Amino acid sequence: MSPIVVWTYDWVPEAPRGFVRDLRLRWACEEAGFDYTVRTVPLNPKSADHLARQPFGQVPFLTDGELQVFESGACLLHLARKSEALMPRDAAGEAETLQWTIAALNSIEMVAVPWWFLDMTGTENSQVTGWLQSRLDHIERVLGERKWLVADRFTVADLLMADVLRVPKVRAFGDRPATESYVARITERAAFKKAHADQMAHFAAADAARA
Amino acid sequence: MSPIVVWTYDWVPEAPRGFVRDLRLRWACEEAGFDYTVRTVPLNPKSADHLARQPFGQVPFLTDGELQVFESGACLLHLARKSEALMPRDAAGEAETLQWTIAALNSIEMVAVPWWFLDMTGTENSQVTGWLQSRLDHIERVLGERKWLVADRFTVADLLMADVLRVPKVRAFGDRPATESYVARITERAAFKKAHADQMAHFAAADAARA
Repeated sequence: MSPIVVWTYDWVPEAPRGFVRDLRLRWACEEAGFDYTVRTVPLNPKSADHLARQPFGQVPFLTDGELQVFESGACLLHLARKSEALMPRDAAGEAETLQWTIAALNSIEMVAVPWWFLDMTGTENSQVTGWLQSRLDHIERVLGERKWLVADRFTVADLLMADVLRVPKVRAFGDRPATESYVARITERAAFKKAHADQMAHFAAADAARA
Repeated sequence: MSPIVVWTYDWVPEAPRGFVRDLRLRWACEEAGFDYTVRTVPLNPKSADHLARQPFGQVPFLTDGELQVFESGACLLHLARKSEALMPRDAAGEAETLQWTIAALNSIEMVAVPWWFLDMTGTENSQVTGWLQSRLDHIERVLGERKWLVADRFTVADLLMADVLRVPKVRAFGDRPATESYVARITERAAFKKAHADQMAHFAAADAARA
């Protein structure tokens, strides 16, 4: 059996399918050509075993032989250290991959997720909207000047940034052509398509097993 | 001159003093015994040089010889790879430090910052409040079972988690004795006190220069 196991939920409703974050880990494994398997924990109720492996009761988490890692960003950086396909090996390339991976999480997703959440629950907050606009404007400026975030090549930082930006409501948030082109280009990659199709098939099979 | 330069603002108003995130980097340098200097960029207006080094116009960022790194989480992980005082050197210790550092950013701060922001702007949202309560309950359970997040010792993950949790309104958010004791214990460290005092002195000196 492969030492790499990506853990996700046994089933989720239709809305989050294609966006459950095991997709990030599947995608990274596909990019790197890692052999991996996918295993599941129940969505509800959360098991004690699940909470022992992911203390916030979320997915994904990763097993890599004896190692266990949770947080999709941490799993991606862990995988990136195993394959040059995901991150350059020189000190500058590693530092820049690290900074842009965390920027995707903490400068974009940290604003986009609450904005999306407020939007979904019908709560108006012009400051959060302005905060998101400002962050998206900054990333549009960066993406207008370069094709990739790091070292003129695809890295795990692009994987994560594109995954954060491809959320439909965030992506539709104003006319930002460089961002749109970046997301479209990166989600055209074979590894993304495979990971996305595999996640959709996984949950479809779970529907079939429930029927 | 030391190769490590921590960049922060030239001046900020009183409210954020003691919480500007250059403190995280000062603290890590103090824990590791690194020689470092602090330099500044103007708070307003943001300079082109600032945006070239930190594309979102924030602080801190770090210079380490030829390397430049932004995002406080990325800077901390970069510093951690330079000193065993901040992170164990074995694979499991590194992976766990990575996951808990990112958990502080993305499972706690990603919820606490928007909650604080909504609270400050007088916007009611019971879902965001519930979301924060749930995350804080999970971390309280974890901290009730162990003294440190990783490997039975202080790491940069504790530095960041304590810094996220010490925000007064988050800290006051319900009765969570294990979290309270953890934050109190970690902010008693000499390196935190030095970093905090140095940041306060830095901004006080800026007031004096303006007067």
